[in-house]
Amino acid sequence: MRIGIDIMGGDYAPGNIVQGAIDACGRLGAGSQLVLFGDQRQIIACCEKAGFDYSVFEIVHTTEVIEMSDHPAKAFQQKTDSSIVVGFKALATQAIDGFASAGSTGAMLAGAMYTVRPIEGIIRPAIASDIPLLTGSRALLLDVGLNADCKPDVLYQYGILGAIYAHLMNGLETPRVALLNIGSEEEKGNLVTKETFKLMKDSTDFLFVGNIEAHNLFSGKTADVIVTDGFVGNIVLKQAEANYRIAKKRNIDDEFFNRFNYELYGGTPVLGVNAPIIIGHGASSPLAVTNMILQTEQAIKVQLVTKIKEALYKSKTNIT
Amino acid sequence: MRIGIDIMGGDYAPGNIVQGAIDACGRLGAGSQLVLFGDQRQIIACCEKAGFDYSVFEIVHTTEVIEMSDHPAKAFQQKTDSSIVVGFKALATQAIDGFASAGSTGAMLAGAMYTVRPIEGIIRPAIASDIPLLTGSRALLLDVGLNADCKPDVLYQYGILGAIYAHLMNGLETPRVALLNIGSEEEKGNLVTKETFKLMKDSTDFLFVGNIEAHNLFSGKTADVIVTDGFVGNIVLKQAEANYRIAKKRNIDDEFFNRFNYELYGGTPVLGVNAPIIIGHGASSPLAVTNMILQTEQAIKVQLVTKIKEALYKSKTNIT
Repeated sequence: MRIGIDIMGGDYAPGNIVQGAIDACGRLGAGSQLVLFGDQRQIIACCEKAGFDYSVFEIVHTTEVIEMSDHPAKAFQQKTDSSIVVGFKALATQAIDGFASAGSTGAMLAGAMYTVRPIEGIIRPAIASDIPLLTGSRALLLDVGLNADCKPDVLYQYGILGAIYAHLMNGLETPRVALLNIGSEEEKGNLVTKETFKLMKDSTDFLFVGNIEAHNLFSGKTADVIVTDGFVGNIVLKQAEANYRIAKKRNIDDEFFNRFNYELYGGTPVLGVNAPIIIGHGASSPLAVTNMILQTEQAIKVQLVTKIKEALYKSKTNIT
Repeated sequence: MRIGIDIMGGDYAPGNIVQGAIDACGRLGAGSQLVLFGDQRQIIACCEKAGFDYSVFEIVHTTEVIEMSDHPAKAFQQKTDSSIVVGFKALATQAIDGFASAGSTGAMLAGAMYTVRPIEGIIRPAIASDIPLLTGSRALLLDVGLNADCKPDVLYQYGILGAIYAHLMNGLETPRVALLNIGSEEEKGNLVTKETFKLMKDSTDFLFVGNIEAHNLFSGKTADVIVTDGFVGNIVLKQAEANYRIAKKRNIDDEFFNRFNYELYGGTPVLGVNAPIIIGHGASSPLAVTNMILQTEQAIKVQLVTKIKEALYKSKTNIT
């Protein structure tokens, strides 16, 4: 399989990205080839500095960079020789099997939505994030920011996407899917969650375990997949990530609080599009980049996209 | 002033409530009289057990209790001699100046909405909660669960309510009011926050400082009042409160994380109704009850309700 990486994206690119790719090499499967999109001269310089033989990588030379300050959609249209745009072209033509970047989230989403495109039948793709559980395991939270306003049928599909991801990527046989809400009873919540509960409670597409309240998010007692809209999910995730920074600031070195460190989770998968796409944190360290690459490899290996398509096809009669 | 307390409400009533009232006595102002609503025999027994002279209290004997398992609105109509209903009647007739309970939140809200009633001009009252800041200070979060679905004009009024509360109760000259959102820019957010930003940005009713993202909630760098709908606010608050329990479970004894302990904050004020009403946590300890009583006393002393009415009257031309 061929794993594409944007070398120019991220606050510490290309240094951290190349280093992360180098570190990933020893941990990738035998059939995995890393394909680096970026400035060839800089990539080679980074490798030489690290004493690493750059011929291990396949390098696709690009001359432009989509900056964090660029308007994502415009930049995606105009910077046609940028690492992200060239990467997406390779992904769309199956010259690579998956693509990861710690660069402009907006440009990555533009590529996901307009070049790779949503899977047929998916109303809205989502972005997801792992959160740590006190059990030592992790849960998947989605959507964490792609769709701020979600209708019930969209949230229902997030249940499908989340269950498949947690099954294939987090190794759970039958993930427990919960709806994030402000009460445990069916009639609690806002207009959208009340309607969503009605759709989910009879689901045969995933194991719905009911509502989860925010004080139980990290317990692991009830849910492996937590479904919410992108507004609430983004707030929950940012509040959770702040725990790590606050703990550090307070000189707390605790195994659980340390697991709120985003570096450990690689990146945020875009779910419901026609190829594995992972978006890393802008400030990604080499460790975060390595994890992002390994996550992309796994998504390709487990045939995440194919399995989502199959599940969606099976469930079509269930969604109106 | 006369401060009413429901002695029968809460998981550990009447014991914890009476003890909290006893502990409050030494800390109340000279003109403050505690009025206890509940079973006289039990109240006296609790006082005698504590070696406390119960004649310090004014006791209003009641024979019924609204249980947590009761349907709040129905129980409020049917249990006419319950401590909560009798307390609200006293509040509505100004026989007491404020009322606090750690009992059924639903019944307390029923009393607030139908007996004491919203202030004229308030579209929807809110419930608010203090959250700890890393600066050592605290911020006010509202709504934390009364209105799961809020329109922009409702959120705008929460800015007014929050600013007045933070000024009078948290001692801030000009509280900074922020809108909880998923990006710092005006155009970020969901449909409701985008519209709310437009209303707030020209506000002369309070100092609007823009959007706040969840990773900055506890920093104290940008906001003293954080406005959001009751769905998001409830989730943020429960996630924050879980920090305390998780820290305890992890044997972390940290001054900041300890401040996520709800006991320190007394209770949740109902803002935008015609009298000071404070709802305590069901599991309130004597310390939490004492703080709830002191909070009620302060709300009466600073004339919270009158000040809200004045601000609302001034702002009427600003809200469409």
